[in-house]
Amino acid sequence: MNSRITIREVSLRDGLQIERPIPLSAKLELLASVAATGVREVEATAFVSPSKVPAMADAAELAAELPNYPDIEFSALVASPNGAKRAIAAGLRAIEYVVAASDSFSKANVGRSSAEATVHIGEILAIARSSEVTVEVIVATAWDCPFDGPTPPQRVLDIAAVARDLGVDRFSIADTIGTATPGRVSSLIAQLRPVIGDIPLGGHFHNTRGAGLASAYAAVCAGVTRLDASVGGLGGCPFAPGATGNIATEDLVYLLADSGFDVDVDLPAAIAAAEVAKSVVGHELPGALLRAGDRIRN
Amino acid sequence: MNSRITIREVSLRDGLQIERPIPLSAKLELLASVAATGVREVEATAFVSPSKVPAMADAAELAAELPNYPDIEFSALVASPNGAKRAIAAGLRAIEYVVAASDSFSKANVGRSSAEATVHIGEILAIARSSEVTVEVIVATAWDCPFDGPTPPQRVLDIAAVARDLGVDRFSIADTIGTATPGRVSSLIAQLRPVIGDIPLGGHFHNTRGAGLASAYAAVCAGVTRLDASVGGLGGCPFAPGATGNIATEDLVYLLADSGFDVDVDLPAAIAAAEVAKSVVGHELPGALLRAGDRIRN
Repeated sequence: MNSRITIREVSLRDGLQIERPIPLSAKLELLASVAATGVREVEATAFVSPSKVPAMADAAELAAELPNYPDIEFSALVASPNGAKRAIAAGLRAIEYVVAASDSFSKANVGRSSAEATVHIGEILAIARSSEVTVEVIVATAWDCPFDGPTPPQRVLDIAAVARDLGVDRFSIADTIGTATPGRVSSLIAQLRPVIGDIPLGGHFHNTRGAGLASAYAAVCAGVTRLDASVGGLGGCPFAPGATGNIATEDLVYLLADSGFDVDVDLPAAIAAAEVAKSVVGHELPGALLRAGDRIRN
Repeated sequence: MNSRITIREVSLRDGLQIERPIPLSAKLELLASVAATGVREVEATAFVSPSKVPAMADAAELAAELPNYPDIEFSALVASPNGAKRAIAAGLRAIEYVVAASDSFSKANVGRSSAEATVHIGEILAIARSSEVTVEVIVATAWDCPFDGPTPPQRVLDIAAVARDLGVDRFSIADTIGTATPGRVSSLIAQLRPVIGDIPLGGHFHNTRGAGLASAYAAVCAGVTRLDASVGGLGGCPFAPGATGNIATEDLVYLLADSGFDVDVDLPAAIAAAEVAKSVVGHELPGALLRAGDRIRN
């Protein structure tokens, strides 16, 4: 078990992705509150099709503001080599390339099969290497696909082997639709570890069915050292209307710190950032500490 | 790790306890829906002061209806030897006696210190033994007290030693205010196991700060074989207004079954019972599957 867990704040990208687009000024307000938590890594935006994801259409404009926070490593999600080029041109120093492990989700998302998307890892790495940019491969639908059902673990392991052989800097697995549970999380990570060796492993969980934090904790116990989270739990899932979104940063910080792990994120500042997130999107958010407040005990 | 987990449905008692009292007919409607889940144990009511807990004032009337469900073991919560006598006179065959591990909570709740409440275990056992009634000791505020702060684990171990020496049938630990986290849950259970030996150990968790299911799963991994849950997550905490209540039965069933554990409770029937719970109390409930529905994958 590792004692230090890196939390990456994803409210600005995954959190806002399915929201009605908000002004850049509102994103900067959210960013400022997030930066005040002490978090060291922030997923800032995505360089994807503005017509498919209008909420991320201002990616380059937002990227221009990021040098105001020199202590934070900002990353951007990309879905193609072209997106990687755009991200690097905009000044990003870390790229996340998403490959869905299931074909139906991959085709619905990017118009390519999982195998075709996997082939692009090498091209993206070549682009990034020439600019000394960090590359993370994220496997989406790592446990379940909304169209194909349960994802055979071997599909995830095969993508991991390609990513390892090509030399990615980080690897992570995402429960895209919030159906994973701790038993299956532990199992997949146990199978994955011998494949990826000492490449830093991350997990991305949604609390859609209530199991997000339990899965995140199981992941940590199985050796994951990096977790994505979103203040307030911002970020629903288009396949489960009304369902809760990403695991809430402040709830995760509470759970991990109280369980004895070291995290960079300050809990009261994270709750304050969740209030800002609620304000900029204009609706309630599912985070538990937003309602219950910090611990009663001191 | 145990493969079979007993879920005790507590919506009728802990779930309804802080709600505005509902008619007996509404409780029977909830009971019927809960019984249809296949659950084998139900906490039906509490034999406590009707003036302090008006929602449980109909305990004897409800108890008279329980023989309609001969396949379910019904239990009642009591806070004193007199309550135990009333429960047995009403026909209950299983009693839960609550002892708070922290003095301030114990005094606020029952007007006695933790040590004074512990002394009553023997008297309650004597009453129950003469009627061949099962007795469970539940330690409330096992991790934290809203007044005294963190509960020293030794306080829980001391109560457990008394309960063991007196020969209680079951022992359980309750996160009364929803502040426990998986790391502290694992730690307390590891300390408790050598004290209680092979007495069946149960856990009672609230999702107030989002960590309830994660704590329940950690408890199971540490050897707990019995978990309390409430359909829909019915049951708030008076110390955290607006916060979520007990862990939701349907969310727990989803998590445990998907993680490979055997449970008696049928998932679609539990979601249906949660809808009934929402209807009888007349407000939204926090359970995640109530919003997201059963898994998308088949």
